[in-house]
Amino acid sequence: MNPDFFMKEALLEAKKAFDKGEVPVGAVIVKDGNIIGRGHNLTETKKDPTAHAEILAIKQAAESVGGWRLLDCDLYVTVEPCAMCAGAIVLARINRIYIGAMDPKAGACGSLMNIPQDERLNHYVKIHTGILENDCQQIIREFFQALRHKKKNIRQSNQEEN
Amino acid sequence: MNPDFFMKEALLEAKKAFDKGEVPVGAVIVKDGNIIGRGHNLTETKKDPTAHAEILAIKQAAESVGGWRLLDCDLYVTVEPCAMCAGAIVLARINRIYIGAMDPKAGACGSLMNIPQDERLNHYVKIHTGILENDCQQIIREFFQALRHKKKNIRQSNQEEN
Repeated sequence: MNPDFFMKEALLEAKKAFDKGEVPVGAVIVKDGNIIGRGHNLTETKKDPTAHAEILAIKQAAESVGGWRLLDCDLYVTVEPCAMCAGAIVLARINRIYIGAMDPKAGACGSLMNIPQDERLNHYVKIHTGILENDCQQIIREFFQALRHKKKNIRQSNQEEN
Repeated sequence: MNPDFFMKEALLEAKKAFDKGEVPVGAVIVKDGNIIGRGHNLTETKKDPTAHAEILAIKQAAESVGGWRLLDCDLYVTVEPCAMCAGAIVLARINRIYIGAMDPKAGACGSLMNIPQDERLNHYVKIHTGILENDCQQIIREFFQALRHKKKNIRQSNQEEN
């Protein structure tokens, strides 16, 4: 199966986050060609700092396989995982990570650090980058543009009131 | 309050993990002198690779404060956090980490990496180490000794059967 196919599914998850006012990141976990875990960022909705797309997808996949080892499973995620998620990917023994857009500010799969490929850890994860990169970047860009616009409007209306 | 007081509470959590056959790590989160989150390692019981003591304590504390930012909160943990947990600690904006025993194989708060003090990230966490270090090491040592003993007995009884 072409990686684009599953990244489109991860993008559908990112869109769900966007529609809820959450930073739009989505992830799916695939085993034997089937999606066994899905997740989108829900930190604000769940009021939970750990509710990133990848963590939620990993939890769902672990439930699906009935154990914490996600052997022979691949993770598709629209934005490069942070340190927490990269650490969780190693703990879960994920086989491959497919990444859409890189995150130069907090990415831990090649940008600031490369936790899944730290050979001192007891598991090494293959990484593929640039999968539908433009689409994955575009939804993030739209989200932050809309946020800045909203904040500007609030500031202006506060100034008018004063 | 003396850090030993809260590390003893984290050790009580580690003991709960031990009694369930889980790697004995425990954590508590403290705000204004009160424990607002507790957790012990439950990866096997919950069949969830993310069910580390720190993650469970952070989730409970976030529920307690009603938001994902654990400002002015301190985390006490019997063993140095791994990359996943260190990343979660930064995301949650924890103020200080108090660590019992270091983990040279997977620790991400000074051993292999130091994620909470990576100044490229948007939050910096103060770290205090060596709190009741011997007690925190001892429970881990006992757990792995018992595990090796159990495995040896299984091997011997298998050889006797053959």
